[in-house]
Amino acid sequence: MVYALILSYRGDGYSGWQRQNNALTVQQVVEEALSGLLGSEVKIHGASRTDAGVHARGQVAHLNLDHEFPVRGLQHGTNQRLPDDIRVMGAFRMPEEFHARKSAVAKEYRFRLLGAATLSPLDAIFAVRVSPDIDLVAMQRATSSLVGRHDFTAFALAGGGHGQPFRRVLSAEWKRSGEELELQIVGDGFLRGMVRSIVGTLLEVGRSRMTIPEFETLLRGRPREEAGPTAPAHGLVLQKVHYAEEWGLEESFSGADDVLD
Amino acid sequence: MVYALILSYRGDGYSGWQRQNNALTVQQVVEEALSGLLGSEVKIHGASRTDAGVHARGQVAHLNLDHEFPVRGLQHGTNQRLPDDIRVMGAFRMPEEFHARKSAVAKEYRFRLLGAATLSPLDAIFAVRVSPDIDLVAMQRATSSLVGRHDFTAFALAGGGHGQPFRRVLSAEWKRSGEELELQIVGDGFLRGMVRSIVGTLLEVGRSRMTIPEFETLLRGRPREEAGPTAPAHGLVLQKVHYAEEWGLEESFSGADDVLD
Repeated sequence: MVYALILSYRGDGYSGWQRQNNALTVQQVVEEALSGLLGSEVKIHGASRTDAGVHARGQVAHLNLDHEFPVRGLQHGTNQRLPDDIRVMGAFRMPEEFHARKSAVAKEYRFRLLGAATLSPLDAIFAVRVSPDIDLVAMQRATSSLVGRHDFTAFALAGGGHGQPFRRVLSAEWKRSGEELELQIVGDGFLRGMVRSIVGTLLEVGRSRMTIPEFETLLRGRPREEAGPTAPAHGLVLQKVHYAEEWGLEESFSGADDVLD
Repeated sequence: MVYALILSYRGDGYSGWQRQNNALTVQQVVEEALSGLLGSEVKIHGASRTDAGVHARGQVAHLNLDHEFPVRGLQHGTNQRLPDDIRVMGAFRMPEEFHARKSAVAKEYRFRLLGAATLSPLDAIFAVRVSPDIDLVAMQRATSSLVGRHDFTAFALAGGGHGQPFRRVLSAEWKRSGEELELQIVGDGFLRGMVRSIVGTLLEVGRSRMTIPEFETLLRGRPREEAGPTAPAHGLVLQKVHYAEEWGLEESFSGADDVLD
């Protein structure tokens, strides 16, 4: 029997999602909580391998059980065994062919900047400070060029092990609310470090260190060193993993706005 | 010479603002950082004695120095000596008669609720979970009765040492954004635990355990035990302390909406 879990976590206590030797990861902690609950070793498969320090609101993982288990018991029993910085937000019984990563049609990330002279400790956990006079209009123009299918080699960190560097960005836009600037980006997949490299490079545009045509050129398979730096992990959140409606797990992808309310 | 500091802090690491024996407080940590910077013992006077666990975005404190000190150096030198969860957001040279508490004309607090089945670890630091089907309309009606001058005895925690229980609430309203409900309340002063007791009692109204007329009766000096429980400290933020325009520290009070942008 296949079950899916929606997971939310703070990334700052973990070396990313994926299990590693000699480093604490979210996958390991969730697997141990599930194994404690179910009394046998459980392995989970996440939709996205979030990097060290990256947060999640809507990571999805699936697991196989050889016996039925009530989904509310799965959620609450696991939560009782999890530390405060990881929570199962929902649990669902799925069709046998469901796979958290392979069945996903899109992933949505958000990256939060605050244009402030000094960052409040209430914001510093989830946002990166930028100068208040950053050129958001130029950043927005460059951002719109991301939409479509491109060779994102310039925005991929080494070690991702990706066979091919083409990905399709379905939507990408900045929303402003007071001092806060938030990038919402939805794509059919992301190379390792891709969103953070995009943000770091857009900030070069916002600081007039790179032109919009130079940014656009990077979308044609340029080497990593031509792009800007990788923005810090703690500004990034895996907001949601989108699946086709038939799975019954979530509504199908219909734009970035359907998430918050 | 009198200086004012705007301070932001996470309350979860501290036993409140005010110095105590045998407990770590925000006042003590800021005084120690200032003393280290200035090379002599410094005492600060805060506008609000925030309780244990309560956060602040705009606490104001003043200090007296017997020599001039550049305000940017005061801000950044203190920040270098402060832990990550306390930050000096601004420093100002003030007229000699300025007093952070006595000169304040109003204080603004915010309390954040999230109507969700499960609280994400990204929200749990700053928000309190409530049932999604809470009756916000009833809560809003009860909230509007708070505006004006009332005897708030029913909403005061013991040990506040307040001589008289009358306070004037200048504005109080809930804002909804998706699952988030935020109370913004501005008053000329607050009794100890007053905002949290108001929120806890409004939640009784939202759960239909108290009627709006019963809530209104509490504003006429009823005993504490007739009101609802005290809501948890971590949902509360001291957003801003308002001063008359002449001080040049902030704009004068012109409603709760001038704060965010």
